[in-house]
Amino acid sequence: MKERLNIIKVGGQVVEDDACLSSLLDSFAGIREKKALVIGGGRRATAVAEALGIRTRMVGGRRITDKDTLDVVTMVYAGLVNKKIVAALQKRGVNAIGLSGADLDIMRSVRRKAGEVDYGYVGDPVKVNVKALGMLLENGHIPVLCAITHDGDGQLLNTNADTVASALACAAASEYDVRLTYCFEKAGVLADPEDEGSVIGRINRTSYLRLKDEGVISGGMIPKMENALDAVGKGVSEVMITNAESLGKGSGTIVYA
Amino acid sequence: MKERLNIIKVGGQVVEDDACLSSLLDSFAGIREKKALVIGGGRRATAVAEALGIRTRMVGGRRITDKDTLDVVTMVYAGLVNKKIVAALQKRGVNAIGLSGADLDIMRSVRRKAGEVDYGYVGDPVKVNVKALGMLLENGHIPVLCAITHDGDGQLLNTNADTVASALACAAASEYDVRLTYCFEKAGVLADPEDEGSVIGRINRTSYLRLKDEGVISGGMIPKMENALDAVGKGVSEVMITNAESLGKGSGTIVYA
Repeated sequence: MKERLNIIKVGGQVVEDDACLSSLLDSFAGIREKKALVIGGGRRATAVAEALGIRTRMVGGRRITDKDTLDVVTMVYAGLVNKKIVAALQKRGVNAIGLSGADLDIMRSVRRKAGEVDYGYVGDPVKVNVKALGMLLENGHIPVLCAITHDGDGQLLNTNADTVASALACAAASEYDVRLTYCFEKAGVLADPEDEGSVIGRINRTSYLRLKDEGVISGGMIPKMENALDAVGKGVSEVMITNAESLGKGSGTIVYA
Repeated sequence: MKERLNIIKVGGQVVEDDACLSSLLDSFAGIREKKALVIGGGRRATAVAEALGIRTRMVGGRRITDKDTLDVVTMVYAGLVNKKIVAALQKRGVNAIGLSGADLDIMRSVRRKAGEVDYGYVGDPVKVNVKALGMLLENGHIPVLCAITHDGDGQLLNTNADTVASALACAAASEYDVRLTYCFEKAGVLADPEDEGSVIGRINRTSYLRLKDEGVISGGMIPKMENALDAVGKGVSEVMITNAESLGKGSGTIVYA
């Protein structure tokens, strides 16, 4: 039987609220099984870009990443946010190690080809160094990934953090029994978006399609669900969708194959 | 007999010149023995701080690090500069891993007490995780350290890169035959500052004191030499003082016990 590995993805905005970050890291530190953290971007990059006079352009919720913007997200995601979290985990006795995809060649991506939209220096993951990941985990080191990858040819690439988390989870599934948790602002997939108590406990592809038809699942939840279903289709044992406050409490929506 | 470990320290300004950086990384990639890189700060942090409207204050060549400045150096040193170099090393087939002191708890420091000058969030190294360093090296992973450490209590601290390099070298000397190389702008310690051909081949404490008395060694070279002599006094096999162009060519000034 494979050992359980918990991969937790949270948005970069958690670091903007000290109390929220502290509570999240306490919960993460409390997970006794093997674990890794993936931290998304957030408003901090936009704020730094703005202060530097670099215009932020978003298309469909995705950041257009020109050379200057790549520098900013590398500074903020791989530097400021990542190291603050690593230091805060060390304080909690978690021997964390912050990683971009370039570190240990842990995640390689290919630059997205310009189609209708040219996203610039944006990459889609193609290869995970599972051996290096295993080496860290077996030594009790806890990976903290940021949403920056590389192409193996010296180029860093801005990468969607949800995708980083699912690529990591899918690759690690060859060696571990992987539970992937997406923390977002809601307690789970809600039957009634106005009622946080209406969390749907379990969803698979069949029930997802029905919920989508009924309009219960819509908007930004659709790519999230597609990501989750894709992961369980590729060997991830289950995907949990919940919020940072509920991490480790077992509540939320479980997506299963 | 202990295995040789080469620790190379270069200034952050190398990343500001593509040709210089490329040549340095080629030389570093060519080192066949075990190795680690320490990258200093540089003008990029000052430029970013300025663009963000944060005033840079230096006292005796050292940056006064208030909270905003700490954010800037964390972004630039641990993020932008570190990840660019790691990606460039991966391109050269070097399985590099970028580290701040917080990552793997690799280097812990204590915040410098305010004396005549309050340097702010500046730390002096007190503890190196030699076990984690060894684990990386034995797995063929090449550490690339930046000049950011942590206090173990969640606080990141700006740290002099020469000191990071010598603290790493001294601690690693318990396990490895350490050669520490400081790359700076000159080809070595020069008998005549106007003549790059006048490199003094070997210096120990006795000859250093004589050269200092004679005024041959002066200014910024004094703390560098003190650092080097301190390192060889603490078990580092030798310290090489040279420039980035000469890395791996064996030329420069060797400081020995």
